[in-house]
Amino acid sequence: MKIKPLQDYILIEPLEEEKKSKGGIVLPDTAEKEPQQGKVIAVGPGKHLSSGKIVEPGVKKGNIVLFRKYGPDEIKVDDKKYLIAKGEDILAIIE
Amino acid sequence: MKIKPLQDYILIEPLEEEKKSKGGIVLPDTAEKEPQQGKVIAVGPGKHLSSGKIVEPGVKKGNIVLFRKYGPDEIKVDDKKYLIAKGEDILAIIE
Amino acid sequence: MKIKPLQDYILIEPLEEEKKSKGGIVLPDTAEKEPQQGKVIAVGPGKHLSSGKIVEPGVKKGNIVLFRKYGPDEIKVDDKKYLIAKGEDILAIIE
Amino acid sequence: MKIKPLQDYILIEPLEEEKKSKGGIVLPDTAEKEPQQGKVIAVGPGKHLSSGKIVEPGVKKGNIVLFRKYGPDEIKVDDKKYLIAKGEDILAIIE
Amino acid sequence: MKIKPLQDYILIEPLEEEKKSKGGIVLPDTAEKEPQQGKVIAVGPGKHLSSGKIVEPGVKKGNIVLFRKYGPDEIKVDDKKYLIAKGEDILAIIE
Amino acid sequence: MKIKPLQDYILIEPLEEEKKSKGGIVLPDTAEKEPQQGKVIAVGPGKHLSSGKIVEPGVKKGNIVLFRKYGPDEIKVDDKKYLIAKGEDILAIIE
Amino acid sequence: MKIKPLQDYILIEPLEEEKKSKGGIVLPDTAEKEPQQGKVIAVGPGKHLSSGKIVEPGVKKGNIVLFRKYGPDEIKVDDKKYLIAKGEDILAIIE
Repeated sequence: MKIKPLQDYILIEPLEEEKKSKGGIVLPDTAEKEPQQGKVIAVGPGKHLSSGKIVEPGVKKGNIVLFRKYGPDEIKVDDKKYLIAKGEDILAIIE
Repeated sequence: MKIKPLQDYILIEPLEEEKKSKGGIVLPDTAEKEPQQGKVIAVGPGKHLSSGKIVEPGVKKGNIVLFRKYGPDEIKVDDKKYLIAKGEDILAIIE
Repeated sequence: MKIKPLQDYILIEPLEEEKKSKGGIVLPDTAEKEPQQGKVIAVGPGKHLSSGKIVEPGVKKGNIVLFRKYGPDEIKVDDKKYLIAKGEDILAIIE
Repeated sequence: MKIKPLQDYILIEPLEEEKKSKGGIVLPDTAEKEPQQGKVIAVGPGKHLSSGKIVEPGVKKGNIVLFRKYGPDEIKVDDKKYLIAKGEDILAIIE
Repeated sequence: MKIKPLQDYILIEPLEEEKKSKGGIVLPDTAEKEPQQGKVIAVGPGKHLSSGKIVEPGVKKGNIVLFRKYGPDEIKVDDKKYLIAKGEDILAIIE
Repeated sequence: MKIKPLQDYILIEPLEEEKKSKGGIVLPDTAEKEPQQGKVIAVGPGKHLSSGKIVEPGVKKGNIVLFRKYGPDEIKVDDKKYLIAKGEDILAIIE
Repeated sequence: MKIKPLQDYILIEPLEEEKKSKGGIVLPDTAEKEPQQGKVIAVGPGKHLSSGKIVEPGVKKGNIVLFRKYGPDEIKVDDKKYLIAKGEDILAIIE
């Protein structure tokens, strides 16, 4: 089974605290303004500007990204949690 | 009788919890941010951008989609429930 | 006497519950999100996009339509109730 | 003395209940969503779209119109009440 | 000393009740939706539309105008009160 | 040290009441809608319109301007107070 | 490890009060409207205007900037605090 995001939606597998501390980034989960880390699983085709042009997402499958924790919708596939985030809620790529 | 959506409205037959668990996706219906699964029955011609261009819906009849549960309007045809969702509330196609 | 809608306003004669059940659609009038059925009596010339282009209404005189119940303004002509709805509140055509 | 509306403002002489019942339209003045009838006295040159194009008003001097009751500003000239309405608050022309 | 408005700001000298009643317009100062009369002292160069075009103000120095009472900012020059109004708050020219 | 505003931000040195009364303008500091006087110290390159065009600020270094008191951000350099205002909060130039 | 901002996001290392007072700027941290100083660590590719054009950030790596304190999201890398700010929250460059 495959989930194909539409528009500029991005399917993300959230990374657990354990994984995150390996990468050196610690994101305390107390404050509301702290973004979360995740892995991009699939990206939508992009967002239409009012001019008719399409802005393709700035991320691709496999990227580790920082995104706003409170924006995305949550789904479960085979008991595993995924998130569907709007492109504008993805802040940065971690390399 | 036939319902033809206008603009970028999408007519959806919501999928029951039973059907959903077959596909492996379980969507707990407790939290407000969890999207719902459904089958696309009919799609509108698309949405006009301010430039005058039309954005055709990214889904078509027969697609199984994930959509935001609290956006769509609900109607009944011959005692069966359908939903009319805005294109922007459709998050992804499930294949 | 004739009422000619402006912009993308649509003049609608709301259909009574009795008429609706004939067509097979039953719209319970309890929930706020349930759209209503009606017959298009007259349509405005269309809406100007910021580019200057005009979007003509997707419906025409005689169409049976589904529209959002709480958007339109209500008027009475010779004791009969009509509604004036914005184009964006018309969800679908019923054929 | 003459009042010349700017932009897409429309100067309207509101019609009294007595005049309205002659035309066959009765507008009960209880509910907030009921539009009002009036006579167009003067119209502004039109509204600028962001593209720079001007949308001329869809009504002209002498038209009997239906407009939203709670939008317009009220002025008095020689003890007679007039209203200045935005173009978007004019719903229809009555012929 | 001279005040030169920027953008589509308009410098207005408000007219007193005494002056207004001469012109035949009486503006009771009780209700919030009643516009006020004033004399245009200076006008800004105009407002930029998103297309880059400039919309010049529809009024000029010396015009007697009707404007929304609660929008403008108030300043004092040599103990005399003036108002700086946005172009969109000027409703009409009185001739 | 030099502060170079970005976008359409304007760096302003607010003028004290003493200085203002010399110029003949007295701005009572009681009401919230009263703009304040200041001297332009530096201007940003301008604001991008959605068309991609840049609107350069209508003011330049040295101008005495009227601006909305409650919009700007406040900073201190060597114990002296400055303000950083958005272009749209600058109402007029005083000459 | 490297954080690459997307869109017009800017990665900032906030400067401590101690460092700031060296530069002569003292920013009392009491009022909500006071911007903060920081050093630009990385900048995103820019923001898409609706016309499809990209506005590149007005700042670059190494710049010392003033930004609005309450806009940015906060992250920690190896126990050091960084901020990710929207381009519009960067007010000025300090040289």
